[in-house]
Amino acid sequence: FPVFGLARLLALAAAAEIIFWAVHFRGGMAFSSETDKLLIFNVLFEPRPLTDKEIMKVRHYFCETHPVLMLIGLVVLNGEVYETILSMGVPKERIVLHSCIIANGDNVLMDSMVLHAALLAYKTVPGTKKLKKLVHLALQFLALLLGLIGLWTVWKFHNEREIDHLYTLHSWLGLACIIFFSFQWTTGFYTFWYPGGSRSGRASLLPWHVFFGLFLYVLAIATSVSGLLEKSIFMQSAKMIGRFSTEALFMNSLGMLLVLLGALVILAVVS
Amino acid sequence: FPVFGLARLLALAAAAEIIFWAVHFRGGMAFSSETDKLLIFNVLFEPRPLTDKEIMKVRHYFCETHPVLMLIGLVVLNGEVYETILSMGVPKERIVLHSCIIANGDNVLMDSMVLHAALLAYKTVPGTKKLKKLVHLALQFLALLLGLIGLWTVWKFHNEREIDHLYTLHSWLGLACIIFFSFQWTTGFYTFWYPGGSRSGRASLLPWHVFFGLFLYVLAIATSVSGLLEKSIFMQSAKMIGRFSTEALFMNSLGMLLVLLGALVILAVVS
Ligand code: HEM
Ligand code: HEM
Ligand code: HEM
Ligand code: HEM
Ligand SMILES: O=C1O[C@H]([C@@H](O)CO)C(O)=C1O
Repeated sequence: FPVFGLARLLALAAAAEIIFWAVHFRGGMAFSSETDKLLIFNVLFEPRPLTDKEIMKVRHYFCETHPVLMLIGLVVLNGEVYETILSMGVPKERIVLHSCIIANGDNVLMDSMVLHAALLAYKTVPGTKKLKKLVHLALQFLALLLGLIGLWTVWKFHNEREIDHLYTLHSWLGLACIIFFSFQWTTGFYTFWYPGGSRSGRASLLPWHVFFGLFLYVLAIATSVSGLLEKSIFMQSAKMIGRFSTEALFMNSLGMLLVLLGALVILAVVS
Repeated sequence: FPVFGLARLLALAAAAEIIFWAVHFRGGMAFSSETDKLLIFNVLFEPRPLTDKEIMKVRHYFCETHPVLMLIGLVVLNGEVYETILSMGVPKERIVLHSCIIANGDNVLMDSMVLHAALLAYKTVPGTKKLKKLVHLALQFLALLLGLIGLWTVWKFHNEREIDHLYTLHSWLGLACIIFFSFQWTTGFYTFWYPGGSRSGRASLLPWHVFFGLFLYVLAIATSVSGLLEKSIFMQSAKMIGRFSTEALFMNSLGMLLVLLGALVILAVVS
């Protein structure tokens, strides 16, 4: 049962869907025309007061960009990390056996972390350890960066429209997500890359790093699901879309897809 | 680090909080006065048309009872199952060792399921296997029952107020939750209790039973979080409560508490 392939497929589908949603249903992310490019520029530097029409577009930009960046950054990219965990084509018996045979420091550690399969994959996937670390570190950095930009867009959007900050459960979950994610990246970098902890320091952080990384993944999914839910309800309250409109059904389906994705990762990890 | 004790504490706090929310903020669940008892009766049998005032109360009852039953049934009671998983006071080394030494059918199975700790606990917790099974089965039945009653209350509430069914992402998640939960209970009962499958049949179902049980636990938490979020937003749109009212903050905090609870369970399971 190709859990890994399926999970990757679902993640890509989710990425495609959120972009399709922003572009098709929400009227785009204002990346195309000359005016819009200027607007994007203005968003960053605000060299002159914007016209009302421009302000409308900018708001649009802020508002629709947040979900796209969040979902692709914190769910899809972050999920790429689980490649190793998810490549589970290895027979169970070999894994159990493996946990009995290999006994040097790092490996016993990984075993007791329960990630037999991750370890095996780690041993079989090509590339030096250093290179794999670099890829992991860089992907997670990109995820964090997209997450920060996505946070900034929605924050600014709230400012522009004079909406309160941080009053919803979604925003609390989201803030926790970003804070923990930054923390995870920083401690990971500091311990495993530069300057790098002692051998025993690294060994004792690793299991926590993995648990926390998995938790963050699930948290990011729950946050995205709650964001989709509230966005849909906000638009329904504002009579922008109907309860059973194509868009509402599309958003609910995307939410269910994300849950399925989360389920696959949990299944893969505990098996 | 007493993960189990902490998780149980958080679960109890969550149960207390949802009841407090329904009784204190939402004006009770209509269990106390003579009229209300009649109303509850009427809800079930409807022997005569209700007065407007009674209908108001009944609606109240439906509306506030759903979250209480759902949270206590599907999150707290369901969570009691994880006692075994969560009693993690056992040193890591002993678990690893254990996975190498014990090698009869059942145990290798549990090991390959990664639940070394669950297995150890299973061996140490008192009571016959049959009794423990009965407790597990009965608790999950109670959870399912509360879930079904909670679903019925909100469904009826929607009928009475002529609100559409199943238009939110919360309701989709919730329905999936209940269906999967019924399915899990039925297959569990049929295979492990009565009439009971063959030894190899039981052995091959068990890991799936455990994975799926864990997934359902996380799903129930995500569903509850989304329910709290939408309830709060609905009440804010209706100007019943403010964005930073005590009640809104209380509901958000309860949501965060649930996420923490979920995190503890994930941590305990993957470690
Ligand atoms: C891991 C992913 C996500 C994170 C970390 C996140 C984080 C946040 C944060 C911190 C805020 C508060 C901004 C403020 O108070 O000014 C927010 C607001 C918002 N987000 Fe997200 N978000 C995520 C995904 C999504 C998705 C997929 C949607 C789907 C449409 C969405 C929709 C919204 C909406 C409508 C708001 C404004 C209302 C509110 O404050 O809750 N978010 N998000
Ligand atoms: C928020 C950012 C991060 C998250 C969510 C995260 C998550 C994870 C997860 C889930 C694993 C286990 C799965 C696997 O082996 O692929 C892991 C392993 C690991 N992570 Fe991270 N990580 C983050 C940042 C970092 C950083 C900045 C470093 C610095 C080098 C790092 C170093 C490692 C190492 C050394 C491993 C052990 C296995 C390997 O080398 O692939 N992580 N991480
Ligand atoms: C595992 C727990 C839960 C499950 C399985 C669940 C399930 C459901 C289902 C299936 C519906 C749809 C009813 C219909 O369409 O007629 C629903 C509605 C609702 N639930 Fe829950 N629920 C859960 C927890 C909660 C919690 C904790 C709250 C918190 C207040 C809540 C608030 C609501 C509200 C406001 C509705 C009506 C709006 C809608 O259809 O989404 N639920 N629930
Ligand atoms: C929806 C209902 C159910 C859920 C969510 C569920 C969940 C779980 C979980 C998470 C485990 C592993 C943790 C542990 O060992 O305590 C487990 C084990 C087990 N379950 Fe269930 N279960 C359900 C219903 C049933 C039923 C009806 C039976 C019938 C007897 C059953 C039989 C077993 C058995 C035999 C085990 C193996 C370990 C043990 O005996 O404690 N389960 N279940
Ligand atoms: O009925 C049961 O089946 C499993 C296991 O024996 C299958 O191998 C188990 O733990 C039971 O109590």
